[in-house]
Amino acid sequence: MKQEHLEQLENVIEAVKSRQIENVFFIACGGSMASLSLGDYFFTKETDVPSFVYTSNEFIHRDPKSLGQNSLVILRSHSGTTPETVKAASFARQKGALTVAISMETDSPLCQSSEYIIHYNYKDGSDAIDGETGMFYSLIFQLLNVFAPNEKFARVVEKLALLEDLYTKNREKFAEVADTFGKKNKRENIIYTMASGAYIHQAYSFTSCLLMEMLWIHSNAIHSGEYFHGPFEVTDYDVPFLLILGEGPSRPLDERALSFAKKFSEKVEVVDVETLIYEGVDEDLKEYFGPAIIGVVLRLYADALAEHTGHPLSVRRYMWKMDY
Amino acid sequence: MKQEHLEQLENVIEAVKSRQIENVFFIACGGSMASLSLGDYFFTKETDVPSFVYTSNEFIHRDPKSLGQNSLVILRSHSGTTPETVKAASFARQKGALTVAISMETDSPLCQSSEYIIHYNYKDGSDAIDGETGMFYSLIFQLLNVFAPNEKFARVVEKLALLEDLYTKNREKFAEVADTFGKKNKRENIIYTMASGAYIHQAYSFTSCLLMEMLWIHSNAIHSGEYFHGPFEVTDYDVPFLLILGEGPSRPLDERALSFAKKFSEKVEVVDVETLIYEGVDEDLKEYFGPAIIGVVLRLYADALAEHTGHPLSVRRYMWKMDY
Repeated sequence: MKQEHLEQLENVIEAVKSRQIENVFFIACGGSMASLSLGDYFFTKETDVPSFVYTSNEFIHRDPKSLGQNSLVILRSHSGTTPETVKAASFARQKGALTVAISMETDSPLCQSSEYIIHYNYKDGSDAIDGETGMFYSLIFQLLNVFAPNEKFARVVEKLALLEDLYTKNREKFAEVADTFGKKNKRENIIYTMASGAYIHQAYSFTSCLLMEMLWIHSNAIHSGEYFHGPFEVTDYDVPFLLILGEGPSRPLDERALSFAKKFSEKVEVVDVETLIYEGVDEDLKEYFGPAIIGVVLRLYADALAEHTGHPLSVRRYMWKMDY
Repeated sequence: MKQEHLEQLENVIEAVKSRQIENVFFIACGGSMASLSLGDYFFTKETDVPSFVYTSNEFIHRDPKSLGQNSLVILRSHSGTTPETVKAASFARQKGALTVAISMETDSPLCQSSEYIIHYNYKDGSDAIDGETGMFYSLIFQLLNVFAPNEKFARVVEKLALLEDLYTKNREKFAEVADTFGKKNKRENIIYTMASGAYIHQAYSFTSCLLMEMLWIHSNAIHSGEYFHGPFEVTDYDVPFLLILGEGPSRPLDERALSFAKKFSEKVEVVDVETLIYEGVDEDLKEYFGPAIIGVVLRLYADALAEHTGHPLSVRRYMWKMDY
């Protein structure tokens, strides 16, 4: 990891240690919020520090009463320009909270509005450890190690050096199956996603940013547990589902949803997190690495839809093209 | 309110006061979870007691570390038989948490598995104060008054006596516009819902239970703030949206989403919470009563879709018909 990145992480950890942090807020919009949600997942599971996720505007308007001097607020925006998130940073600072911005642009409004910065590299050819997942995971697992010290978390941080290699190998492994998915689904105008646990936010991200935003395909990210309490009634032989079969404690929920969906739909695609390549990752760390790797695999599925529909992922009709 | 219901509420409040409650968990599935979410909304907004919502199975499998003897766990199931929620009650009790079950059936497994019971009447002709919203609101606002004492909350509880009358009047007011919605949308196979703040879970409920479960119409409950961070790209002249224009702090988010959606879709339906009849409700209590009334209004929109599609809301193809 780059020296500058190491120092940024160290600064945040020192700041957190020097304050009496009583709760953590993860604040962002869209895909950035989905990424941060993983932090919330592991915080609720591994520590007794209350943690919350809000889309930036909801955070400001709801004005949670527990937000204050003892709060750690982690904000994220790829460009660092998302207006709602920039406002949320100022809002949190006014309340006295410790603010940390995650972005690829350190001179962005978000980073300028926040006390601490975690920068990540983006598509500049550098190692994944310095990229968005490498940096975010480093931050989260170092924080977990502060709030609920466990040698496992230190090992996760250490093993993040494997990310680049794991990305490459998993991209290779899933290229063909993803391409077939794109071919089979190129005429679909709706594709549901499904997941639970550490993966529900991956489904959310795939639904909101890849299917709806980039491909204009209707979608909804259904929680595998919630599927049976309403949504499953839309299942039919011709209704497509992309199900993330997770690694970790909530896998049984996904298995149950999969088994049902496959009975009544002929269009169920499964991305099984257990079949990812985890080369070099200790067995007991797999549940932390699955969510770190799955994103690059899911991206292949979106790439394949783009390829087969002739609708590049870069196309927008509204975003960045007008005021809204 | 019936004597037995008053006593149930009193028992819960006494139990809560006698324990050192440090966090609150709202646990249920589907529509019941959506209803409980309102409790979480007001807890995060009005108190500094950390509160969380989980679908029952996710709760058990995630096993939040902060769940313990100082937790209040509120569970809800209409019939009291939802297996995941029954298990969640046992799980929470094993952890030493204070458990409260909300259900229409006091001899149900859920009520038998929980320490305290809040019963509600259902379609038996009794006053709304003893029904699901009357009882749940009584519980929530009495609890808020324990954790963050405020005369406003006592006034909400008092004014819940108005519910029955408000239901009747609002049903009358919205009958025609809902019918027109049903007629206009009877050929749609996808209808998005949109909302924020105290209403996002109403949208979730309408999407999951009414559109997807009961009407087999594809849907997704989009947060008005999140709309601009992906989902809005599916907006087109022929894509229908049902937007709840909320009452309360996050209304500006809904207004922004509405203004955009209307520019590019010819099929935007608005249910404006400010136009509900609030007769007898103090001005400063409207934000608490809006979410209590909107449910019966939204139901009319689903009834109208059922009427015009000839697909009764009672029809299922999987639910209750097979093991899953």
